[in-house]
Amino acid sequence: MTSSLPLVERKRRQARQRIIAAAQELFLERGFDDVSVGDIAERAEVGRTTFFRHFGDKQEVVFAKEQELLDTITAAGQADDVPAPQDTGEAVEQLRPVLLALCSQATADPEGFTRHFELIERHPELRDRDARKAQQIADKLSELLTHRGADNATAVLAGQLALACYQAARRLGGDPRTLADDTRDALARVLALGTSTAETEAEPPARRHAAAPAPPLPLSAEE
Amino acid sequence: MTSSLPLVERKRRQARQRIIAAAQELFLERGFDDVSVGDIAERAEVGRTTFFRHFGDKQEVVFAKEQELLDTITAAGQADDVPAPQDTGEAVEQLRPVLLALCSQATADPEGFTRHFELIERHPELRDRDARKAQQIADKLSELLTHRGADNATAVLAGQLALACYQAARRLGGDPRTLADDTRDALARVLALGTSTAETEAEPPARRHAAAPAPPLPLSAEE
Repeated sequence: MTSSLPLVERKRRQARQRIIAAAQELFLERGFDDVSVGDIAERAEVGRTTFFRHFGDKQEVVFAKEQELLDTITAAGQADDVPAPQDTGEAVEQLRPVLLALCSQATADPEGFTRHFELIERHPELRDRDARKAQQIADKLSELLTHRGADNATAVLAGQLALACYQAARRLGGDPRTLADDTRDALARVLALGTSTAETEAEPPARRHAAAPAPPLPLSAEE
Repeated sequence: MTSSLPLVERKRRQARQRIIAAAQELFLERGFDDVSVGDIAERAEVGRTTFFRHFGDKQEVVFAKEQELLDTITAAGQADDVPAPQDTGEAVEQLRPVLLALCSQATADPEGFTRHFELIERHPELRDRDARKAQQIADKLSELLTHRGADNATAVLAGQLALACYQAARRLGGDPRTLADDTRDALARVLALGTSTAETEAEPPARRHAAAPAPPLPLSAEE
């Protein structure tokens, strides 16, 4: 694939990868705060102009992966001919494979994933940026549905619900090896919401209380 | 209420309000970027130390209201004796009145609400912070449920789902006069997810397609 790209595009991508690698090295060596854009450009052997052609600021390099995730969603939208979802449930169902693919992509390098979030946790400005990046992913998922013909209210809500499932999975474990499964579980819970309430209401109170503490599986109380 | 507070606490709150008012005036007059913490402290007639006792940085003043929203959730958790929700649906139901109260509180001054988001939209750093503030609200809603005895998975997912409804409402209209209603509609859609899919599947295709474009009410396609 890569070798079939025009030379200029190959060089562009190589420069981008060098910038990302240089930044990661420097952040580990000196800490995020003590690394400047100039330091990163120097280590990557590119000019500052090249740096800013790829990244808006130093923070953006930390979220290079998130840009790839956004590109994946865009590609998914361009490739398919899935018909418009007819309601919120169908819309969330349509987002499920895309969201799970994003989880796999985000955690393909488990150590890198863990290092990424350790870095973010130590820096409030990166936590801010991370929260907005997550919102951008939700907005992109909504766009995918709009592109398929979903009405705006359905597309926006389904995108936000998909993000909610991912964020819940990240908060519950944050383990890269189980992130996709935890997200899948959260999606299953969400898609069963109306039915699970009805089932719970029909259960006698004794069983409901007995089922509450430490269920063996996250879904057991609702299935 | 306020007059019964100790003098020192009354003075503390007055200083905080003066800082917020001074910052809002200055941001309108000069723009966010051209106002320093020193400018705000001077206009508010407080020292820089007092400023930083109330706000971590200049950005935080913009989100003074969000801190009040977090305080509201904390107060809701301390006051009540609601039993633990038994599943995600019940947990979201429990968050509904709290979330709608937050919507009302956030939009009590509609012009202020609109100005707030106009300011945020113009400044990427404020968009970053806004996204994290929203996540803090979701986390606080999850804490409220944990405090009531909900298991962690249910509490975290329900908090994220409540945020998803609020964010969807904000993205769809962003109109302070309809924000609470739009959030209520989103919550209703979410709580009916499992059932709505079943209903849609039972409908003949013709009706499904006829119902798709521009339904008269956001919920009509799913009720």
